[in-house]
Amino acid sequence: MRTIEWNDIENCIEMIDQTKIPLKLEKKFCKTIDSLIDAIKSLKIRGAPALGAVGGLGIALSAFQYGGEDREEMLGAIISDAKRIKDVRPTAVNLSWGVNRVLDKVLKNRRFATTLSGESIEDIRRFALEEAKRICEEDVKINKTIGENGAKLLNDGDTILTHCNAGRLACVDWGTALGVVRSAVEMGKDIKVFACETRPLNQGGRITTWELMEDGIDVTLIADSSSGIVMRNKMVDKVIVGADRIVKDGVFNKIGTYTHSVLAKENKIPFYVAAPYSTFDIERTGGEIIIEEREADELRKFGESYIAPKNVKVFNPAFDFTPMKNITSIITEKGVLDPGEI
Amino acid sequence: MRTIEWNDIENCIEMIDQTKIPLKLEKKFCKTIDSLIDAIKSLKIRGAPALGAVGGLGIALSAFQYGGEDREEMLGAIISDAKRIKDVRPTAVNLSWGVNRVLDKVLKNRRFATTLSGESIEDIRRFALEEAKRICEEDVKINKTIGENGAKLLNDGDTILTHCNAGRLACVDWGTALGVVRSAVEMGKDIKVFACETRPLNQGGRITTWELMEDGIDVTLIADSSSGIVMRNKMVDKVIVGADRIVKDGVFNKIGTYTHSVLAKENKIPFYVAAPYSTFDIERTGGEIIIEEREADELRKFGESYIAPKNVKVFNPAFDFTPMKNITSIITEKGVLDPGEI
Repeated sequence: MRTIEWNDIENCIEMIDQTKIPLKLEKKFCKTIDSLIDAIKSLKIRGAPALGAVGGLGIALSAFQYGGEDREEMLGAIISDAKRIKDVRPTAVNLSWGVNRVLDKVLKNRRFATTLSGESIEDIRRFALEEAKRICEEDVKINKTIGENGAKLLNDGDTILTHCNAGRLACVDWGTALGVVRSAVEMGKDIKVFACETRPLNQGGRITTWELMEDGIDVTLIADSSSGIVMRNKMVDKVIVGADRIVKDGVFNKIGTYTHSVLAKENKIPFYVAAPYSTFDIERTGGEIIIEEREADELRKFGESYIAPKNVKVFNPAFDFTPMKNITSIITEKGVLDPGEI
Repeated sequence: MRTIEWNDIENCIEMIDQTKIPLKLEKKFCKTIDSLIDAIKSLKIRGAPALGAVGGLGIALSAFQYGGEDREEMLGAIISDAKRIKDVRPTAVNLSWGVNRVLDKVLKNRRFATTLSGESIEDIRRFALEEAKRICEEDVKINKTIGENGAKLLNDGDTILTHCNAGRLACVDWGTALGVVRSAVEMGKDIKVFACETRPLNQGGRITTWELMEDGIDVTLIADSSSGIVMRNKMVDKVIVGADRIVKDGVFNKIGTYTHSVLAKENKIPFYVAAPYSTFDIERTGGEIIIEEREADELRKFGESYIAPKNVKVFNPAFDFTPMKNITSIITEKGVLDPGEI
């Protein structure tokens, strides 16, 4: 089952609603850009590679949503939707990447957005959809290659610590960090995983555990702050995480990744980042990127219940920055890279 | 208001039910050893120094609970209750310390537990209660002294990161780590605090935030895994935590403490432990102490809702071990100690 795909009957985007996992497996159908934006914002769909697919499919949806006959007007609508989609998760480079890649197909000159390519409105829809579907197919293929490249680094019997969810549900399929685990298991290696809960939205506790259990891979849930004790007690052989954005001097990933990297360095445990090339943004450095802060209520509330004082101040960054010196290697579809080579 | 005290009218133990904070301030009255054990187990009362008071008051309660006239039988009942109380939180050295200190007053020779001191059953009750109340009074005095000793280490304008709750509600009053903050504020210093949520039971999010806000001290809640970003970004000047047990070569404290200590070392931020002498167990070393593991459902569930797959494996240690080399100083009622001197 794919995490996200185009529904050819309804001409809409179909995705697994990840906020419902592990309680139930439920599909969300996005028939409008508003509902897509809501799905991205509320993390019904999340994960760097999946957001690339969302971005691409979002432009296709925009093209299908336009109901008029005026190419100028359609151009305006697509450009405006593209901006709205990209603005939902500004730190997630893949979202913009997916949007821009499909825009490149439908605009004659994206930089100036002067005109649409394609003779007819139908042409434009077709161009957009074909390219968006290509992103999805490539994502699966890329993840499988990342998996194969990374699996060679794992030994039979290894225990891996991972953070958040860089799995099947963060991608169109297979996964990046968990794709490496899956490929190693497929090669016949015995691999166990510690999944960090990943506060405040518990993607590790809810999603990583669920998808590994679905595949019959041995997984143990720990609190984020237990990563220290498991590393110090040599219960972990390697750390593998995904990435939201890889810049010249480091990696942006889910808040807590930097913490694990420091603990890994202290305890001499290899620390790997598994991510597709679409995550690379190496013209920039860490200092140039503004880390998005999410809503205070993610830490103040659980569902409708308050778990902290209602008006307590909160600092809730979505990501942190791990400097390259804390990273052993970056596993990509083009091979395993030394961070010094980036 | 005291966190825990003897109720002279009902002859029972009265405590703030900390599982209800921050939603409501509710008292729990323990009239039996069973209800006291339940209160300790379910963390209605927690925190190393408070557990010392619980242990002492528990023996007084046992003496008051004994309804017969037979000194031999009373001896047996107290010894048996003492063991039951100590067994609830085996890693928490203060609980045993409080129990043993009051036992020393009511038994002629605790090592052999041969007979009770005191002529009458009323005498024994009085001895137990006086000693237990003395523990409570001393705790407040000790915390104030720890606070004064530690406050000298803080500069006007400092931001402190703390973990779990080593505050008023972890003690009879004032607090250890937060006692240092309170004393510094009382001296007129401007101090801000980052409170780590402290999964899985959220003592930081629920209790530390609540008690600092009650006192008008500036507090910001963060996820445990945000301690890395705030330290790396120099948003924190000092880390101060409490301790559950201080052994020759390190400190046992709430799970996550070791993680913060490694991050502090990496980012050259002083890391202080504030604790009374009753927490010291320096005849032993870290390797000798078994860390209690708490129930898997603490990570699988929130209230009645599942937040992870129902049957996922969990590793949920209550404490971790921070080696002395990661600790800048230990703040006690007898002064600020260099970990090398322990």
